[in-house]
Amino acid sequence: MASPHDLQARRETADLNGWRQAIDQRLAHHLKPQELGKTLPCNQSLSRLWQAMAHGVLGGGKRARGLLVMASAQAVGYEPLSESCLDMACALECIHAFSLVHDDMPCMDDDELRRGKPTVHVAYDEATALLVGDALQTLAFELIAQAKDIGDSTKIEILRSLSRATGARGMAGGQAIDIHRVAQMLHQPELEEMHSLKTGALILASAEVGALLGLGPSALRSSVYSSIQSFARDLGLGFQVLDDLLDVSASTQALGKTAGKDAQAEKPTFVKLLGLEETKNFADRLHQSAFSRIDGLDDRANALRDLAHALTHRQH
Amino acid sequence: MASPHDLQARRETADLNGWRQAIDQRLAHHLKPQELGKTLPCNQSLSRLWQAMAHGVLGGGKRARGLLVMASAQAVGYEPLSESCLDMACALECIHAFSLVHDDMPCMDDDELRRGKPTVHVAYDEATALLVGDALQTLAFELIAQAKDIGDSTKIEILRSLSRATGARGMAGGQAIDIHRVAQMLHQPELEEMHSLKTGALILASAEVGALLGLGPSALRSSVYSSIQSFARDLGLGFQVLDDLLDVSASTQALGKTAGKDAQAEKPTFVKLLGLEETKNFADRLHQSAFSRIDGLDDRANALRDLAHALTHRQH
Repeated sequence: MASPHDLQARRETADLNGWRQAIDQRLAHHLKPQELGKTLPCNQSLSRLWQAMAHGVLGGGKRARGLLVMASAQAVGYEPLSESCLDMACALECIHAFSLVHDDMPCMDDDELRRGKPTVHVAYDEATALLVGDALQTLAFELIAQAKDIGDSTKIEILRSLSRATGARGMAGGQAIDIHRVAQMLHQPELEEMHSLKTGALILASAEVGALLGLGPSALRSSVYSSIQSFARDLGLGFQVLDDLLDVSASTQALGKTAGKDAQAEKPTFVKLLGLEETKNFADRLHQSAFSRIDGLDDRANALRDLAHALTHRQH
Repeated sequence: MASPHDLQARRETADLNGWRQAIDQRLAHHLKPQELGKTLPCNQSLSRLWQAMAHGVLGGGKRARGLLVMASAQAVGYEPLSESCLDMACALECIHAFSLVHDDMPCMDDDELRRGKPTVHVAYDEATALLVGDALQTLAFELIAQAKDIGDSTKIEILRSLSRATGARGMAGGQAIDIHRVAQMLHQPELEEMHSLKTGALILASAEVGALLGLGPSALRSSVYSSIQSFARDLGLGFQVLDDLLDVSASTQALGKTAGKDAQAEKPTFVKLLGLEETKNFADRLHQSAFSRIDGLDDRANALRDLAHALTHRQH
């Protein structure tokens, strides 16, 4: 197992910045308003919807989920920069962006700042933000249907993984717990359960989707696939624990969203439950555990290791 | 072509009520809260989410889209009461219900009554209504992934049809036009374009999904498939024209939603554009045209004819 020192000293071998740019370019491609053949004035409303969708997705974001699709794909020998892999990375980012746009709305977290920009309902209006989230969710599934060079049976497994992670058994369920968490002192198992649904499920799906690209439907019987799944579960929880730490230590400018919000909102967090030091230790343990899960994988998994390292040491 | 008299005199041969009950039963099956293995208190939030989803979907509704899936399937020789066909009917109804739940929210139409019951954000709260809509959309796509006895390539075509109809190129796009239509006097081509996206796209997809079940991916080269598509386009627009007529003539009790709302909201409607008489004629022409599109289909298409008849003569 890699020691914390190894993790600190690790030099990145994968070009994560290049990958991130490739995701952003591909997202911009998919979010170009369709060519509107007719010149009806109502088409302005359609263009405005596409602009608002682009506002919600483009211009910032760590692209952790998209990068995880790519790194997972590479770990099983699938070309991460292929069009099909980038499209699946875009699908994951669309689901994530949809959840942020809806999460930021007044009836949920009521946030005005996201990725350093006004949130969609502030830049546009609430009705548009609602439709933007709805349409971004759909776009993710449309990308699966339209993707080239992926076999139909693999697409169905990808659809299964992503839909399960997104719906009431995944992200939406986690959010349902979250809206009742304010001023409720959840205990650690419940906080972990909430995060495993709210954030963890989609991070797990990202890793699954990438691995499915390379392994196909037989992935479900592969030990490499289960290693990558276990890695993603640890990574997902660690990601959220670090989020709680950053919420108390980082500035609003660094985060690109309102800092200290969870603490102020009297939401239970790991920091409140465990204290600052113990939370840091918990994050370290999770990240080390994540690394150990893919110990048996060859050098093609280095991008997964680099990504875990980058997410562990992020400042926002 | 059938004359209006024939349409009036038509006796139903398909058991649409029985079909509707079968859809409702299958929806209830899919909306049972998952068996929650763990006994964490936060599971109450999950149960509440599933209850709210059931509230948004069950207990009322014409099930026009689900019935159209079944009638279309039967027209091409696929068993409408098979589990797979019912699951696809449920998928269409989940998309429709999600759009109603979000449409009723305060930032959109701000409606308090739907299918004779309080809307989801009234019975629960706005944040829950937002999540219910999100999770119902996902459930539709999950049902495609999980359905048994449908080939993977057929599933991908179904996914393509449904995702295109639901997103910014379909329903969400139509709604984006709709939110700017208040106090704008759209002309008839624009009103038709809006409805073809907002309502028509999903009605078209319902017919496509049913036909795809029987024809498989080769449907796209079949003349029967294009006949059914043309039928559904006429039916969809006729459905909306009749909606405008009912909005001025039916009572709130009969509609199960607030009557006269579109007229009062100064939204452009066909009745305002064309007048009452000409709108009735337009609706009749569309329904006759719909019938003529499937003239060449054999008796297995009688359920499609019955459904068109029932929707043409509906009182709500």
